[in-house]
Amino acid sequence: MAESVKILGIAGSLRKASWNRGALRAAQKLCPEGAKIEVFELDGIPAFNQDEEKSPPHNVAELKQRVRAADAILFVTPEYNYGMPGVLKNAIDWASRPYGDNAWDAKPVALMSAAMSMGGGVRAQYQLRQAFVFLNMDAVVQPEVAIGNGMQRFDEQGNLTDETSKKLIAQLLKNLVEKVRLVKPRMRATA
Amino acid sequence: MAESVKILGIAGSLRKASWNRGALRAAQKLCPEGAKIEVFELDGIPAFNQDEEKSPPHNVAELKQRVRAADAILFVTPEYNYGMPGVLKNAIDWASRPYGDNAWDAKPVALMSAAMSMGGGVRAQYQLRQAFVFLNMDAVVQPEVAIGNGMQRFDEQGNLTDETSKKLIAQLLKNLVEKVRLVKPRMRATA
Amino acid sequence: MAESVKILGIAGSLRKASWNRGALRAAQKLCPEGAKIEVFELDGIPAFNQDEEKSPPHNVAELKQRVRAADAILFVTPEYNYGMPGVLKNAIDWASRPYGDNAWDAKPVALMSAAMSMGGGVRAQYQLRQAFVFLNMDAVVQPEVAIGNGMQRFDEQGNLTDETSKKLIAQLLKNLVEKVRLVKPRMRATA
Amino acid sequence: MAESVKILGIAGSLRKASWNRGALRAAQKLCPEGAKIEVFELDGIPAFNQDEEKSPPHNVAELKQRVRAADAILFVTPEYNYGMPGVLKNAIDWASRPYGDNAWDAKPVALMSAAMSMGGGVRAQYQLRQAFVFLNMDAVVQPEVAIGNGMQRFDEQGNLTDETSKKLIAQLLKNLVEKVRLVKPRMRATA
Repeated sequence: MAESVKILGIAGSLRKASWNRGALRAAQKLCPEGAKIEVFELDGIPAFNQDEEKSPPHNVAELKQRVRAADAILFVTPEYNYGMPGVLKNAIDWASRPYGDNAWDAKPVALMSAAMSMGGGVRAQYQLRQAFVFLNMDAVVQPEVAIGNGMQRFDEQGNLTDETSKKLIAQLLKNLVEKVRLVKPRMRATA
Repeated sequence: MAESVKILGIAGSLRKASWNRGALRAAQKLCPEGAKIEVFELDGIPAFNQDEEKSPPHNVAELKQRVRAADAILFVTPEYNYGMPGVLKNAIDWASRPYGDNAWDAKPVALMSAAMSMGGGVRAQYQLRQAFVFLNMDAVVQPEVAIGNGMQRFDEQGNLTDETSKKLIAQLLKNLVEKVRLVKPRMRATA
Repeated sequence: MAESVKILGIAGSLRKASWNRGALRAAQKLCPEGAKIEVFELDGIPAFNQDEEKSPPHNVAELKQRVRAADAILFVTPEYNYGMPGVLKNAIDWASRPYGDNAWDAKPVALMSAAMSMGGGVRAQYQLRQAFVFLNMDAVVQPEVAIGNGMQRFDEQGNLTDETSKKLIAQLLKNLVEKVRLVKPRMRATA
Repeated sequence: MAESVKILGIAGSLRKASWNRGALRAAQKLCPEGAKIEVFELDGIPAFNQDEEKSPPHNVAELKQRVRAADAILFVTPEYNYGMPGVLKNAIDWASRPYGDNAWDAKPVALMSAAMSMGGGVRAQYQLRQAFVFLNMDAVVQPEVAIGNGMQRFDEQGNLTDETSKKLIAQLLKNLVEKVRLVKPRMRATA
């Protein structure tokens, strides 16, 4: 039997009823067989300070440990001011440091976004993709899951209700798992 | 006599001996006559949480008040993972919210960066420039001040020692002050 | 009486019924008093070859001459493959060369886009804005005119029919003319 | 025996002694065993016109046919005005059209750049990477091959002389070939 694929999911918003948290919950349910999404919550991660990078706060150390233990990463990001939120970038910065101890290194990754605007947060996604080049993370190319017009696609608790978005998320996760299995053959299903 | 131009300077790193803090100190000394740079320190700004945007923490409220009181903004940013640091973006996100209460609105702005790499942090600068389009901030176009190869241009306390960089900073500030005076004629020197 | 502001308008598509050509025609009609948009057509501009940059083809020489004679530039661009069309970038490349003979230098500029997608071509706009930093062109910040969902906003001949878009274009042009007048006081209207 | 991997190499400059053409020649010699780089020259490709996309010029049709026949693509790009050259983008635009007939679809791809500046053309690379998201091309993440300071790394005929750059190119090609073999198992070497 194939080994299960462990995906670490991280949402870039701290708002309780966040659409991005909701999209991540939806992803957990849509995850293909043989894979599982666990969530790391960014609440409480302090501002990055390079003077402390060698003995980071406890929750940053835990983030790094959980990133390392994962087979793949799933980022779910809002778009603030035409870019990635500071909250998400700050967590990425912490876990990439100190030099030579980049926890993200070589992790396959998928990304999605949710936003009020019609664009759905694509500008935040491109900034994430640019970071992946430095971080050495191989990203799923398509489908692009950018859930725009969020008011009509999430309920008041931030739960994703849109069926089209759910199908895209399912496909994205399938492609992420496939990317993991290409580089980790022991995770491929066998007869 | 012309009214003085008040510039608020913000460095995107919390490291004590930060080159970016050093470049900002240098800028304070290089500021043209009739203008002054005051510094806002980002230490202690918590992670942005949209649930709290209407009654933000005390230091965020102070940031917004000081941004509003300034005639212009000067950002000095490191580059982390091919982009703007989370610490700086987080502060920008806070002060841009809630919707309709964007403190950065219509502020002329200049930006500079310092980094270890030869590129000097330009990738962080482009992400800032993209944010400015949303924030409605009119940025000085040139010179681009991206202080690369920082090990040779700053001393151990993070003080800028490179003369070429100092000349570029002086020109950048001159252009920023000129931009302010174009839109606020009362700040123009008169005979 | 104030001197008239001459704007050179350039559309980044060669298609006959191009929405971008249509948006440029609309801009000509929406131009504020005291300003005029003349159009330079990119048809026939060959592929840039650096070996020929010192004695460029006749129509490239004409482009450079007309850019120089203009007080400001208006780019109207489609978005192809998440970026600026090669056709438009190629014209920009030609007129920026050879080194030290950049025709775009110091021109105030405004940009708008039209596209099939809901985003309306913003990705092409950000690439243009990044080029402006190198070219030393000071761009109008807002409003962003990105005419998405073009099928419903242009007629079959590519004429802009959408009233909201027209209002945004009028505001964009007003802001461009204002930018020109700030740096060229002789163009300001006097009583 | 494994089937050979066919890579189509495209340089984004028409200059005869182009460093990018030189870097592509170097890549041909550095190609790992079991793979081969053939070159498509962009000279003579006309400006993209959507009105002609369904019956494109002969050399565009040939470009599309050769892209389709390749197992992977290698782009070698200069950086003009902080972005991709119009010449290269124009070729990409042609071969991506008409809608539904994108020749680049699903091709693994690697990219490198050469430039006068210290940065070596990275800004053009990021614009290419953004296009790949739309084009559905899976790009090698690292190493980033951006050959800066070209005057010291190429001879007068545009031949690459720098050994460090050659090693990086060899590694990039190795990674590209590996990416192809992951998705096309018949190309994997067998005992």
